[in-house]
Amino acid sequence: MINNSPIVNNSLLRFQANRIGGAMMRKIKISKAFTLLEPGPVVLVTTNNGKKNNIMTISWTMVTGFTPLFAMTTGPWNYSYAALKKSRECVIAVPTVDLIDRVVGIGTCSGASTDKFEKFKLTPVKGKQVRAPLIRECLANIECEVIDIVNKHNIIVLEGVAAYIDSTRNEKRTIHAVGDGTFIVDGRTLNRRQMMRSKLPDGV
Amino acid sequence: MINNSPIVNNSLLRFQANRIGGAMMRKIKISKAFTLLEPGPVVLVTTNNGKKNNIMTISWTMVTGFTPLFAMTTGPWNYSYAALKKSRECVIAVPTVDLIDRVVGIGTCSGASTDKFEKFKLTPVKGKQVRAPLIRECLANIECEVIDIVNKHNIIVLEGVAAYIDSTRNEKRTIHAVGDGTFIVDGRTLNRRQMMRSKLPDGV
Repeated sequence: MINNSPIVNNSLLRFQANRIGGAMMRKIKISKAFTLLEPGPVVLVTTNNGKKNNIMTISWTMVTGFTPLFAMTTGPWNYSYAALKKSRECVIAVPTVDLIDRVVGIGTCSGASTDKFEKFKLTPVKGKQVRAPLIRECLANIECEVIDIVNKHNIIVLEGVAAYIDSTRNEKRTIHAVGDGTFIVDGRTLNRRQMMRSKLPDGV
Repeated sequence: MINNSPIVNNSLLRFQANRIGGAMMRKIKISKAFTLLEPGPVVLVTTNNGKKNNIMTISWTMVTGFTPLFAMTTGPWNYSYAALKKSRECVIAVPTVDLIDRVVGIGTCSGASTDKFEKFKLTPVKGKQVRAPLIRECLANIECEVIDIVNKHNIIVLEGVAAYIDSTRNEKRTIHAVGDGTFIVDGRTLNRRQMMRSKLPDGV
């Protein structure tokens, strides 16, 4: 695209600055990132142990603060746990319903013996603040730093430091694991913003 | 109903023994209770401070174990927190979409000045193991004991000790708070039990 107008070029530069890794991921305000996990979707969590990338499927997460802070339950029984503990970083990627078989597949094999990015045809995208990769095929990605590990309860507390959404995707429905091998797909959305106005954090 | 067959009477007695408080709530195996919260629905949490019942709306929960164990984020900013801390008990009730305005209403007023059971026309039902009441109008209820409070992160760790489902309800769709005043309603369910068989706990 050629356009010599400085105004257009400036806005094009800003537009590109918010994109990442050639992917159609747009950076969003970090203060809104908690809304990606609050509905309770099953997520993919990526790590990098200094040598290779890995992915695990996690359903046991919650928001613990608006800044945002997240908690996630995992432990030594997950191969990714060692990388998470060592690197103190990860990316939480939010997949949509079209990826369900890859989400289940990732959750039922181990990174000890499998390159999951290769096996499940997913594309790692370099993040800006952590070494763990974003997943290009996901709807959203949140770069996170480990701020605490509550060993007694196998709870990892994370702070989200950068967040991205692929707003060009048609499929935006996430999936919710029931825990018995079934998954609930997002249905319609109801708006109660007016009723909740007093309780919403600024800018959300 | 009059029926003198001892077999029918026995099964009727067993049937009634699993019901609670005149409500159509059937006790379920505690090992399956984690599946009520794993999908991440917004929940109502009841407490009793020794004098009165209260209810709060909570979206920040996760499963932390199959037995089941749950984590919930709350703190002194919620009026219910004092009762939760003192009594070390609560009930997690799972509402469905038909209750959305009551769920939002409960989340936007305080038990300090409001009898929420009365205001929102909900019926407290006496539980079996904790003093906090079940909510008759909800799809499911889990009686819980507080097993730890991680003050540093405002995380309460709970153990579910009894769980009930109202299987006579037509509306079974739960709701997922986004955090911006909108809510996602459950859509369809996809079955991947076969793929996940190796990862499912016994009996689930």
